[in-house]
Amino acid sequence: MNYKVILNTLGWVLIVEAAALVLPLICALAFSEPYVLTFVICILICGILGMLLTLPKTKDKTMFSKEGFTIVALSWIVMSIFGALPFVISGAIPNFIDAVFETVSGFTTTGASILQDVEALPKCMLFWRSFTHFIGGMGVLVFLVAILPLSGGNNLYLIKAESPGPSVSKLVPKVRTTAKILYIMYTILTLIEAVLLYAGGLDIFSSLTLSFGTAGTGGFGVLNSGISGYSPYIQNVITVFMILFGVDFSIYYLILLGKIRSVFRSEEVRAYLGIVFFAIVLVTVNIRPLYNTISETVRYSAFQVAALITTTGYSTADFDVWPEFSKTLLVTLMFVGACAGSTGGGIKVSRIMIFVKSIFKEIKIASHPKSTHKVTMNGRPVEHTVIRAVNVYMAAYIVIYVISILIISLDGMDYTTNFTAVVATLNNIGPGLAKVGPTQNFSLFSAFSKIILTFDMLAGRLEIFPMLVLFSPSAWRK
Amino acid sequence: MNYKVILNTLGWVLIVEAAALVLPLICALAFSEPYVLTFVICILICGILGMLLTLPKTKDKTMFSKEGFTIVALSWIVMSIFGALPFVISGAIPNFIDAVFETVSGFTTTGASILQDVEALPKCMLFWRSFTHFIGGMGVLVFLVAILPLSGGNNLYLIKAESPGPSVSKLVPKVRTTAKILYIMYTILTLIEAVLLYAGGLDIFSSLTLSFGTAGTGGFGVLNSGISGYSPYIQNVITVFMILFGVDFSIYYLILLGKIRSVFRSEEVRAYLGIVFFAIVLVTVNIRPLYNTISETVRYSAFQVAALITTTGYSTADFDVWPEFSKTLLVTLMFVGACAGSTGGGIKVSRIMIFVKSIFKEIKIASHPKSTHKVTMNGRPVEHTVIRAVNVYMAAYIVIYVISILIISLDGMDYTTNFTAVVATLNNIGPGLAKVGPTQNFSLFSAFSKIILTFDMLAGRLEIFPMLVLFSPSAWRK
Repeated sequence: MNYKVILNTLGWVLIVEAAALVLPLICALAFSEPYVLTFVICILICGILGMLLTLPKTKDKTMFSKEGFTIVALSWIVMSIFGALPFVISGAIPNFIDAVFETVSGFTTTGASILQDVEALPKCMLFWRSFTHFIGGMGVLVFLVAILPLSGGNNLYLIKAESPGPSVSKLVPKVRTTAKILYIMYTILTLIEAVLLYAGGLDIFSSLTLSFGTAGTGGFGVLNSGISGYSPYIQNVITVFMILFGVDFSIYYLILLGKIRSVFRSEEVRAYLGIVFFAIVLVTVNIRPLYNTISETVRYSAFQVAALITTTGYSTADFDVWPEFSKTLLVTLMFVGACAGSTGGGIKVSRIMIFVKSIFKEIKIASHPKSTHKVTMNGRPVEHTVIRAVNVYMAAYIVIYVISILIISLDGMDYTTNFTAVVATLNNIGPGLAKVGPTQNFSLFSAFSKIILTFDMLAGRLEIFPMLVLFSPSAWRK
Repeated sequence: MNYKVILNTLGWVLIVEAAALVLPLICALAFSEPYVLTFVICILICGILGMLLTLPKTKDKTMFSKEGFTIVALSWIVMSIFGALPFVISGAIPNFIDAVFETVSGFTTTGASILQDVEALPKCMLFWRSFTHFIGGMGVLVFLVAILPLSGGNNLYLIKAESPGPSVSKLVPKVRTTAKILYIMYTILTLIEAVLLYAGGLDIFSSLTLSFGTAGTGGFGVLNSGISGYSPYIQNVITVFMILFGVDFSIYYLILLGKIRSVFRSEEVRAYLGIVFFAIVLVTVNIRPLYNTISETVRYSAFQVAALITTTGYSTADFDVWPEFSKTLLVTLMFVGACAGSTGGGIKVSRIMIFVKSIFKEIKIASHPKSTHKVTMNGRPVEHTVIRAVNVYMAAYIVIYVISILIISLDGMDYTTNFTAVVATLNNIGPGLAKVGPTQNFSLFSAFSKIILTFDMLAGRLEIFPMLVLFSPSAWRK
């Protein structure tokens, strides 16, 4: 294990975090809130510690997949612990475990909250809370790769470990340029949403925070009523952008290059949009009796389907009171998740497709043993290593899922609550059902359960492997 | 597809069923119940139809895996439909769908019931209901292979398709002898249990029916109170035999051959017994406050752990009122299931082991990319095809699981009920939690949901693949 490279990179992560904390500082100044000092202290802590960590220079900058996994896992833990400082120092969330839960929920774009009264928080704190979604959505190491002149091989291991999906597609041959393009497209899409929300009558603060929450498919809001208090126009804009941020970003690059036709060749995007469409239709039919007009019903249905399949977790309606079929369908969508290469969480549509296609392949082989069948995506055969990675991901996912649910069941909550609490954190969604439903929060869990759920959020965002490698003795052995 | 071989074998299955129906006929005579004619009619229908199907002779007796899968799937469906006739004709279960549900539940050794009052059934019907567990436990095609002089290759395809577990181990080189040894050991073990129950004061009828239910890890009882009304001795005997019937039967063959040491070399059996032991300890600690003495607590705990991991589904206590941790642990055990090559259902311990080992393998490869690691079982590397089969099984399992839960959620029952109803049928357990808990039954589901759950029971018992091949157009294409 190359310790110096790990420490160096952690240092850079803290420096980036210090820079990110300047934004809520500006927010505190703009609203004349008495937390300027809080953010100055946090910026100094992150900045100085970061610079100290970047000091020990090393000529051996080689990095392999285990360093990649370890750096990513440690970066996210370090980033979350220091990102929780503003909440603790200001007293906005005095309990340290709660503050870390909230920050991890932010960075991992989960959006699960332990806050019972969101509106009691100062605006600068809400801004920081929502901004963590933006940072976590595309990833802090992707950002580092975009701005730092690291050697090529290292970049790829970092991006591979941080980016969601079974395989990473480089947009251009250079990893650094890929990272830059991704971040620029991501920022522009976020700003377009903010402008559209502002045009709908929201103030700059709300436009930005809600856009951050949508962009990272996070789900933190700034009102206790979630998104239900906003106008239909605002809700519809958010619906469309949730769906857009759930699309593989390489598609937008193709659109920018004018390769519109190749967009429709992406099986994953087609499947993703198809699932969204049919889910909206099914939920709309199912919840029709609950609402007055069809347009209102479609709006609620589309918003919730988009919010859950992209794992944003915003809500305009208390879907916990919807009919059982809609609830079950929404829980299923929580597992499905968005496209690989998007900011959305969950298992990812492409993994599910590879998973399901392997069943059909096996049936065909059983029927015609002599024929050869391969699992294909976008017309090309899927590599054996990718299929194996998908299977191992599913295995690890299920194991973490079962262990988590067993541990938090010690708190004595009902099965639906425990089940959906783990689903909602491991898939980075936010709300679940019952006691962690859309109008509820995670405050009633014990500190120990909160730590487990915090781990689940990190494991979910980083797609499990970095967390497993970090805690595996064999990775640290020479 | 070799249709004639398929029809011939189905004919033999019906002939075996006609022979099996002689036992409840004797029971009706013994208790002077007015259902002698019912059974005579059923025996004639099965016997005559069976003989007609065996008539069309064919020289081409070749069979491949697709014929194997198709025969097994069709046999179980045919067997269940004709096995439901006594219930329908006698009026014991007048509704045909209900009667098929109950019969499939019997043959698949699920033990889920739509009966609200078991004791209202005549004894001969209860006897037939329990005897289906015995037939289904070891499998009707294994029985056919043991008694019929089929050609060697055909035998293996049938046994492979019907036997549970990721790979089938032949005890002796000849498949037919293997099938014979299995059935003889199975019958002897069942009779030993019946004798022990008889020695504990039960009558012959109860001793036999409860032994059938244990042997097939089925779970149908003959009292509304399940097993809770019997003495601690009876409960303990059943506990021990449930655990024994969850062990890979090849282990008993090794014991018969005096190879005691090789028993302990079986990783799966060690893991199975380890899980049983630790689960009993955890549940005992968790439910200790509910009962008076430690021995009583251990008895309830051990019984329920054994009943659920082996997927028998008997109950001595209403575990739906146990603390959430115990309930969650028991639900987890429902998924785990017993050993491959036992009569138990569920995912099977060896599959879970291969699944979990593949995670560790991948972590090691991520940490040391140049090293080679293989998943091993009992010291030998697991073949690639077995790992692939395990992964595809898990994929198909999850897909069927999700689709089933979505469909039955249309009935509007709560999430825990739907979730555990599918878990309990797909894993061939019997009772779930909430509205399908140990003191409840499946009668409140709609006819359509019952058909879905019936399919799940068959898919679970046959380990999904035969059912998928049966309904796959590519298998029927030339």
